[in-house]
Amino acid sequence: MSILWESRYALRTKGVTSSTIRELLKLTQRPEVISFAGGLPAAEYFPVERFQEACRRVLAEQSHHALQYGPTEGYMPLREFIAGRLSSYGVHVSVDNVMITSGSQQALSLIGALLINPGDHVLVERPTYLGAIQAFTAYQACYVDVPTDADGIRTSELAEALRHGPKFMYILPNFQNPAGVTISRERRHELIRIAQGHGIPIVEDDPYGELRYEGEAIEPLVAVDAELAGHNGDSYTGNVIYLSTFSKTLAPGLRTAWIVAPKNVISKLTQLKQGADLHTSTFNQMVIYEVARDGFIDEHVAELRTVYRKRRDAMLAALDRYMPAEVEWTHPDGGLFLWMQLPAGTPVRTLFEEAVRRNVAFVPGDAFFTGPNPPPTARLNFSTVGEDRIIEGIRRLSEAIVQVQASSVPLSTP
Amino acid sequence: MSILWESRYALRTKGVTSSTIRELLKLTQRPEVISFAGGLPAAEYFPVERFQEACRRVLAEQSHHALQYGPTEGYMPLREFIAGRLSSYGVHVSVDNVMITSGSQQALSLIGALLINPGDHVLVERPTYLGAIQAFTAYQACYVDVPTDADGIRTSELAEALRHGPKFMYILPNFQNPAGVTISRERRHELIRIAQGHGIPIVEDDPYGELRYEGEAIEPLVAVDAELAGHNGDSYTGNVIYLSTFSKTLAPGLRTAWIVAPKNVISKLTQLKQGADLHTSTFNQMVIYEVARDGFIDEHVAELRTVYRKRRDAMLAALDRYMPAEVEWTHPDGGLFLWMQLPAGTPVRTLFEEAVRRNVAFVPGDAFFTGPNPPPTARLNFSTVGEDRIIEGIRRLSEAIVQVQASSVPLSTP
Repeated sequence: MSILWESRYALRTKGVTSSTIRELLKLTQRPEVISFAGGLPAAEYFPVERFQEACRRVLAEQSHHALQYGPTEGYMPLREFIAGRLSSYGVHVSVDNVMITSGSQQALSLIGALLINPGDHVLVERPTYLGAIQAFTAYQACYVDVPTDADGIRTSELAEALRHGPKFMYILPNFQNPAGVTISRERRHELIRIAQGHGIPIVEDDPYGELRYEGEAIEPLVAVDAELAGHNGDSYTGNVIYLSTFSKTLAPGLRTAWIVAPKNVISKLTQLKQGADLHTSTFNQMVIYEVARDGFIDEHVAELRTVYRKRRDAMLAALDRYMPAEVEWTHPDGGLFLWMQLPAGTPVRTLFEEAVRRNVAFVPGDAFFTGPNPPPTARLNFSTVGEDRIIEGIRRLSEAIVQVQASSVPLSTP
Repeated sequence: MSILWESRYALRTKGVTSSTIRELLKLTQRPEVISFAGGLPAAEYFPVERFQEACRRVLAEQSHHALQYGPTEGYMPLREFIAGRLSSYGVHVSVDNVMITSGSQQALSLIGALLINPGDHVLVERPTYLGAIQAFTAYQACYVDVPTDADGIRTSELAEALRHGPKFMYILPNFQNPAGVTISRERRHELIRIAQGHGIPIVEDDPYGELRYEGEAIEPLVAVDAELAGHNGDSYTGNVIYLSTFSKTLAPGLRTAWIVAPKNVISKLTQLKQGADLHTSTFNQMVIYEVARDGFIDEHVAELRTVYRKRRDAMLAALDRYMPAEVEWTHPDGGLFLWMQLPAGTPVRTLFEEAVRRNVAFVPGDAFFTGPNPPPTARLNFSTVGEDRIIEGIRRLSEAIVQVQASSVPLSTP
């Protein structure tokens, strides 16, 4: 007789369901759909020749090493490369502060394993990245959220949220996914002062920091922390776990990202990673290192900035031109996304269906909220498709919004 | 002020420590050490040219796909390839039964997430694979073990162990790591009958099944289960979760392995994998597929069988020649390891230190036991070094054993 598998599943699986984005994306993969729903880098700008050459060289010169098991912490030259780059912000990071992960999603999962007991609260921004919610919910996290505005998380509202005793704060400093906003320098300092005062760790997730299209770079929280608390010896010892990735600057298909944290935290994360996947692909780490080295990554990121800035500008101009007056959106200084606030009462799932009927797609914003009653919002990606299709897509989306507004029953508001 | 990180760690981290093997291996990486301690494939037989050609072709023809994000379940042609191979045992496996994982270690970790509530018991063989213990302990598993002999797990002793109400059984059917033993056909049938009767899932971990050097292949438990219970429609629906990997047949450095399970189990594992690492490297899956296809993997495995058989035979002959009479060892029909039983009272850690002083290394067997008072044992790997060094290493190890026996205080036995 077949066993009853569902009866054997562990309690933690109850909160684990398929991501909304994932299910919606299946509807939008027809080539005629202009999709603002993904979060994909522009495939036509992948540095393919450089990858070709890197693969060739790694296999010709180091195949015994590249195809073999490797250390859990990661490939030493890549860890050194990462430590060196972060040190340019004035925070002293050594290789002992760096662990390579299989994409940033694994970093989030390992941090959940490290810090979350079932029922522990995580302090998040409202809205926040849904991949983090997925990772933390698998460890049975609860959430307390703090609103954001154009300058990022509203630090003036932190005190109230901290009364829930969160285990850590999960913060996206630059061009936040989904909202596209960046935390100001003043608020970064305020956030670090509060975290230091309460002894609360911050997990700083910074996949987009290098993709800035206007304005000046602001030091990451990890650098502010080192500066304000003097955690700035040979090797960082502070309150922040910092994450970033090569997925947005080189290519996501190699699943190579990293964690920077105090050395003792890296040790414990390494033990957890041993149980989780032993180590990240040796070959991929060596190939990524060969691709990134000798300044190539900076040249390539400069090219991406030019491409993505044009696409962002095309989307912003099209929104100005086509959107009804009641619709609002953020102005991201970088990254891949902007965030749209729809008029109160807009039925976003109905809008999504109407948009897909018109062959344009976005992500309904409710997936990015941890609490009840999310406002009607949408995440739009501008990195994946070219400018002409962006303009046409926004035109179609505006028509869908007008259509849904015209046909929806107005909500009575108190 | 720096926060107190250790005070913030989750309860599950208490049982998570660095693997014994990992720490010991650090002592044995000097080139003059003949190491039987690793579990590494022979790097000199990696099919490097085939990997070169596969990388070149994948990047030339499918770079937009290979370097981009991909589906969590895995690359469809690779899933089809795996389903087809397992079907050769007479079990009907469709792509819906297959998920790609980032090495078998991730498969073990995802299965732990799926099935283990804190305090749940897992039924394991005595001894069992330490990577599985690491993965399951991160979910706060307890263990109940069942002894093994030359025919594998002693099914006659299962009834007693089942009184602990284990959540599932974790079984290595072929050339077990560490003991090198294979479960007989009769015991496989007995095991499946008992599992079906009790409604207990079996996790069948089979990384070495293709590396058989003598005797005939025996159907895996998943095939026996399908046959005995009639779970043999278009798509397997039974009681077994089956794991295997390309790490031992092609190369471990690409971290590409798989799970075969009923479709609903694969769905839930896919949701867990989304939170854990989103997906396994698209590039690696496509490269592995290009390397394995068109019969290459079978040709390559045939070559590995010849090489590893010779190394196994060299080790067995050297053991016969050099070991003191009281030492016993298993005769593996395949795989990478054999298992040595040392005389009662042998201080294995002292022996290890003495061996390393003589520039030979092994893994002390205690790491492979889940219960107290492990007997004095050692795991020896024969795949990594050539025959001459194997013979010399066994000679040195026998001297170390004689030395330690001569100088150790005899234990009084009741």
